[in-house]
Amino acid sequence: MYQRPGEVTVEDLDFPKLELAEQNGRKLEHGAILKVLATNICGSDQHMVRGRTTAPAGLTLGHEITGEVIETGRDVEFIKEGDLVSVPFNIACGRCRNCKERHTGVCENVNQDRPGAAYGYVDMGGWHGGQARYAVVPYADFNLLRFPADRDTVMAKLEDLAMLSDIFPTGYHGAYTAGVTTGSTVYVAGAGPVGLACATACHVLGAAVVIVGDMNEGRLGQARGFGCETIDLSQHADVSEQIEQILGVGEVDAAVDCVGFEARGHGPKGSAGEQPATVLNTLMDITRAAGGLGIPGLYVTGDPGAEDENAKVGQLGLRIGLGWAKSLYFVTGQCPVMSYNRQLMMSILYDKVQIARNVNAAVIPLDQAPEGYAAFDKGAARKYILDPHGVVAAAA
Amino acid sequence: MYQRPGEVTVEDLDFPKLELAEQNGRKLEHGAILKVLATNICGSDQHMVRGRTTAPAGLTLGHEITGEVIETGRDVEFIKEGDLVSVPFNIACGRCRNCKERHTGVCENVNQDRPGAAYGYVDMGGWHGGQARYAVVPYADFNLLRFPADRDTVMAKLEDLAMLSDIFPTGYHGAYTAGVTTGSTVYVAGAGPVGLACATACHVLGAAVVIVGDMNEGRLGQARGFGCETIDLSQHADVSEQIEQILGVGEVDAAVDCVGFEARGHGPKGSAGEQPATVLNTLMDITRAAGGLGIPGLYVTGDPGAEDENAKVGQLGLRIGLGWAKSLYFVTGQCPVMSYNRQLMMSILYDKVQIARNVNAAVIPLDQAPEGYAAFDKGAARKYILDPHGVVAAAA
Amino acid sequence: MYQRPGEVTVEDLDFPKLELAEQNGRKLEHGAILKVLATNICGSDQHMVRGRTTAPAGLTLGHEITGEVIETGRDVEFIKEGDLVSVPFNIACGRCRNCKERHTGVCENVNQDRPGAAYGYVDMGGWHGGQARYAVVPYADFNLLRFPADRDTVMAKLEDLAMLSDIFPTGYHGAYTAGVTTGSTVYVAGAGPVGLACATACHVLGAAVVIVGDMNEGRLGQARGFGCETIDLSQHADVSEQIEQILGVGEVDAAVDCVGFEARGHGPKGSAGEQPATVLNTLMDITRAAGGLGIPGLYVTGDPGAEDENAKVGQLGLRIGLGWAKSLYFVTGQCPVMSYNRQLMMSILYDKVQIARNVNAAVIPLDQAPEGYAAFDKGAARKYILDPHGVVAAAA
Amino acid sequence: MYQRPGEVTVEDLDFPKLELAEQNGRKLEHGAILKVLATNICGSDQHMVRGRTTAPAGLTLGHEITGEVIETGRDVEFIKEGDLVSVPFNIACGRCRNCKERHTGVCENVNQDRPGAAYGYVDMGGWHGGQARYAVVPYADFNLLRFPADRDTVMAKLEDLAMLSDIFPTGYHGAYTAGVTTGSTVYVAGAGPVGLACATACHVLGAAVVIVGDMNEGRLGQARGFGCETIDLSQHADVSEQIEQILGVGEVDAAVDCVGFEARGHGPKGSAGEQPATVLNTLMDITRAAGGLGIPGLYVTGDPGAEDENAKVGQLGLRIGLGWAKSLYFVTGQCPVMSYNRQLMMSILYDKVQIARNVNAAVIPLDQAPEGYAAFDKGAARKYILDPHGVVAAAA
Repeated sequence: MYQRPGEVTVEDLDFPKLELAEQNGRKLEHGAILKVLATNICGSDQHMVRGRTTAPAGLTLGHEITGEVIETGRDVEFIKEGDLVSVPFNIACGRCRNCKERHTGVCENVNQDRPGAAYGYVDMGGWHGGQARYAVVPYADFNLLRFPADRDTVMAKLEDLAMLSDIFPTGYHGAYTAGVTTGSTVYVAGAGPVGLACATACHVLGAAVVIVGDMNEGRLGQARGFGCETIDLSQHADVSEQIEQILGVGEVDAAVDCVGFEARGHGPKGSAGEQPATVLNTLMDITRAAGGLGIPGLYVTGDPGAEDENAKVGQLGLRIGLGWAKSLYFVTGQCPVMSYNRQLMMSILYDKVQIARNVNAAVIPLDQAPEGYAAFDKGAARKYILDPHGVVAAAA
Repeated sequence: MYQRPGEVTVEDLDFPKLELAEQNGRKLEHGAILKVLATNICGSDQHMVRGRTTAPAGLTLGHEITGEVIETGRDVEFIKEGDLVSVPFNIACGRCRNCKERHTGVCENVNQDRPGAAYGYVDMGGWHGGQARYAVVPYADFNLLRFPADRDTVMAKLEDLAMLSDIFPTGYHGAYTAGVTTGSTVYVAGAGPVGLACATACHVLGAAVVIVGDMNEGRLGQARGFGCETIDLSQHADVSEQIEQILGVGEVDAAVDCVGFEARGHGPKGSAGEQPATVLNTLMDITRAAGGLGIPGLYVTGDPGAEDENAKVGQLGLRIGLGWAKSLYFVTGQCPVMSYNRQLMMSILYDKVQIARNVNAAVIPLDQAPEGYAAFDKGAARKYILDPHGVVAAAA
Repeated sequence: MYQRPGEVTVEDLDFPKLELAEQNGRKLEHGAILKVLATNICGSDQHMVRGRTTAPAGLTLGHEITGEVIETGRDVEFIKEGDLVSVPFNIACGRCRNCKERHTGVCENVNQDRPGAAYGYVDMGGWHGGQARYAVVPYADFNLLRFPADRDTVMAKLEDLAMLSDIFPTGYHGAYTAGVTTGSTVYVAGAGPVGLACATACHVLGAAVVIVGDMNEGRLGQARGFGCETIDLSQHADVSEQIEQILGVGEVDAAVDCVGFEARGHGPKGSAGEQPATVLNTLMDITRAAGGLGIPGLYVTGDPGAEDENAKVGQLGLRIGLGWAKSLYFVTGQCPVMSYNRQLMMSILYDKVQIARNVNAAVIPLDQAPEGYAAFDKGAARKYILDPHGVVAAAA
Repeated sequence: MYQRPGEVTVEDLDFPKLELAEQNGRKLEHGAILKVLATNICGSDQHMVRGRTTAPAGLTLGHEITGEVIETGRDVEFIKEGDLVSVPFNIACGRCRNCKERHTGVCENVNQDRPGAAYGYVDMGGWHGGQARYAVVPYADFNLLRFPADRDTVMAKLEDLAMLSDIFPTGYHGAYTAGVTTGSTVYVAGAGPVGLACATACHVLGAAVVIVGDMNEGRLGQARGFGCETIDLSQHADVSEQIEQILGVGEVDAAVDCVGFEARGHGPKGSAGEQPATVLNTLMDITRAAGGLGIPGLYVTGDPGAEDENAKVGQLGLRIGLGWAKSLYFVTGQCPVMSYNRQLMMSILYDKVQIARNVNAAVIPLDQAPEGYAAFDKGAARKYILDPHGVVAAAA
């Protein structure tokens, strides 16, 4: 539970109900209650914890949920008690125009303020977070992805399957929308968990060369561990030059921004301060003409902690003239998880990908969440999975 | 011929040769020499004429060429003398990776400095402009679009067919890449010739409602003349509010920027000064979640005449946080004309569209080009077609 | 109500309930009850009425429904009483993999025998037909398309809007999947209502030339009335030759089969007997290399009335060698109406298309349904709209 | 050189010229002469060798060519002597509508009889085959894919790179057009070299499960060697049942026909005779609703050796009713190699795929070609690479 900048606590909560007080007591008879088997700490949670948002005190965090269905509302028809399921972090109704068009990241019926909602997130509809022992998932028949495997198989792969709720689809979305495909050369900005998931997705999509840039040597080592090339941005300010050393040319076919607005300057000198536009401007520089930029990294409409006035309202100085001259395209926004999670689940279940290993998953008890947040904030090259009922640890 | 900011002259030129002195005497045996039947003044020529670029004195302008083949190089196999043809403004080799992938706007073999070339344009490879009596087209078999109709039919539709070299495909590209399709609601920023061509393309693509915004009432009247709704930006600063009056909601499915970097502020007060990012920021505001922005309007890497330092290097303050929150996508760059011109030609030949009427084509002799440039610069709601041999006027 | 081959009757029915006896009393709390405002006779109903299927006696026919919501189940959240709506003929749950992937024509949860269901249709799940005064629509929030206009506007366009439940999307699907786009040349096989709707859709999609072939001169005249070229197949066996007379070449860019398995031979002699493969083989002959065939025309897995043993099990002699040599592609199956109906509704509401006029809609009272079936079976160039409550006639 | 059914000989040929006698001495100044480094025997050559076509005696076979450029015509601008290159088997001009639209398999300018041409193949334009010491490639700038690596690297991977001229792109095309993507379950009919290449491509595309069916246990063993599941069709007639044992359901997401018209019946009894439609009908049976069928396997317009009259003209009895009921789509025709070969080359050069190992490449001298044909015809689980200059063997 978020309390104030830098402080996360663990509190006792009542068993949840199928209704949402934050939306005028909205009834959730279409919802299910899950026993949470795994719930991850996400980099986007960090934006809140660092006080870079307007998140209120007492917000239960957590939007990466994997669980077992223990109760269903009267309107739930296909999901059953005992189902083991993954929960897409975007909450969607399955009935509005956007959902019908597969844009479940911007559902029109789950957030009274604007399209799109998520669990445990500021300005995303008031839905309760999933870093808890139990969680409520509305529109359960639509939102939940049931694992089509027996319990033992699921438990054995739970660390991998836990990545289906957010970072694996999010990384895949970035790569896919950037146009990564068979034989591509790709630059992935950022080697945090989403960056590593994206690099993994690039391999899944058949990329010939995946180059990951970051300033954190531990995270870069993690990337090298599964076949990526790396660029240490704390040492090198000129990304194009580094790419040329790897590929023989200074441009890639496609690039993905897995950093977002809290970017720092590159190079030995630049890394001192925040430069929120630096990643996007770098990507325009190093992507070949007619290439694509996938932008799953978060950019916000309001950043009270930003260093300049424009950035406070999400306005950044972008070299659009350069992008235009190269006929680049840009795809932004939250990943519509449902567009990808079934496919990626199949890849996991049939042993085609080791996403947990690649992002260096670490399982910790729920009550160690504060320590997990702290370590992650310091740049640990890990993806923390909270284990509220101890089942992940038991299975491993 | 461009002489200096604000000055265009008409000069006598030698009959062209199949070689290009500006690229070390490059041989063009794959090229054809055209008698120019029609060659239009383009808004992007204006950027040069206004001195907003580094165009050299003595540059023959003109990249919108329609003509008759009067000579072919020895390597030309399928194009024949007497063929009546449209010339895509982008010069392309048909043999590099980008051309093979249909990205003819960023051909790798026709400009020694960067991908992409055009006739008579600064920094675009040194190719001679087509606002002349004769023009050379390299890689003629690849570049030229032959009209599959008899001479009389072509002559009768020459004003329409003349729009195939640039503005009709360019407007279509903007609409198409923004996702305009059957039943779409669209906002087109700009009612100059490209904006009007784009609005026409929106109708061709089946849009339900096409809303055009501009500050020039004459141009807006032109748009209303073929079924568009309009917003007078000199009167209204809040585009969303105006859209809501038309549609009942303040957002459209798709938006197209047909203005580019020389944009001015909106509203009775704002229009005083340049605001190069204003169009893009407005489009992010008024496009619905998961929608697309087509950006055929020109953004440059260097604008020595810009009002602020960032704009001089093509860096603009964009509200990317807003775009990201709405999961928007952006497609930039020059239209690869060859991807669309054959289809649009068919629409013209079979009377499905009246593009010349919609953009208010005006035919003038070549020696009146300076007057055409001046009138166009003052905001005439016209698209000027230069008629070097008097054949367009004769056919009309 | 279908009674036996050639016999349709009108019977009194009880007011419907939100459950389905034919699926073991399945509860439909997610459903809505509609007052049927318009319900059309469809060509695919004729297959049943002619005895070419195993439809049981007492089947209430009708899958093209437009109505007013008068009651909603307890689980319906967004659809409200009083809403004026169009009902896609395919019944879909909105919760299975196929629905999530937009393949609502093959929903996995609405038919116990195989993917896909429809109202009032043999082997399609036992759902009650809509040629009645009231109809039940399950999963109302997902299935229903609400008209976003005031009641008067809807009533004034009801004949057009009535085509959204099936034939307009179906015709559009055929054209769209065949690749029809700006400037295409297209051949549409069949000038019945679906063929005419498809020809209309081709125009909406921007086709340069739409050629319609049929043996019924009245229907061909209807096609000519909105800008199509026509070929009278009762006079001409060689379709390619006829196309060449129209286009100058004997092939089109794309072709659509709006006839299906009850096709007859072409030409003065051929038309005597059924030739179920003749349309598909003709389309392979007259479609240009790399072109597409859209196949909304119905082909069945069992046709007890067929003239030969293979056709009885849906096996036809196709010239696949020819199709392969030309690198053609084929898209079959029922239109997933939900993929298109919102867009087409916008086209209707904003006066971009006159679908009712193009298919020659004729409004008749419900109790004249048997006469409508008979006239349609005889080849009347009409699309019959049944008007159970007299509101369509009153509005006109 | 093909002499008569069952007989292939090796003959001395003159050094080739840049012209084509078979097309009236057509000049090929745009062409290049290659020293052939590797040239494979293809299953489609077997159709000719078995006498199932009208191939003339004295035809030099071979359309899978990898080589070194030793001479270029005067119009060749970018390809240089010494370049190491792969030759797509489809000959294409790069200047017609189809080539511009990337349909290089049906180029309009290289075959006087119909769209599409190939080297050394009956009815494909009269171009000389590449199972020779030297070969002519027309439109060299367009057709040739230059390897962007040093000579040693190329030589070390020559067996892999030799698969880029046909079977690897062809197998990929089948998988790609069937919709194979991340997490797919796929059935590949046929474990000959194209089938094995397709199975490899399925893995490259991210398939979760690849199931290969054939009657040749040696070839199936080859498939199992790189992670495929297999079905022995000589033992099992019911493919769906076998798939169910592997997947738990009897259907796959996508299916690819790598057999074509010379298919035999399935099961212990059925395999006696040819059943040219059996593969396509099986694929319709085992592909899930809304799935796709890729059909790279050859179907011909004329098969004089067929067992029944319909098959002789390429007309087969297809269960289109079943396909239609499941809303399947079908993509036929020769692979446009140029759409894929650059990407797959990147995968090879960066060690992402071992295509030569997977298809069990075997290098033999050119003068052992007759023995290679004979062994391949008997079902050897090998892909024969002819090595006219001994360089492949030397590099290995």
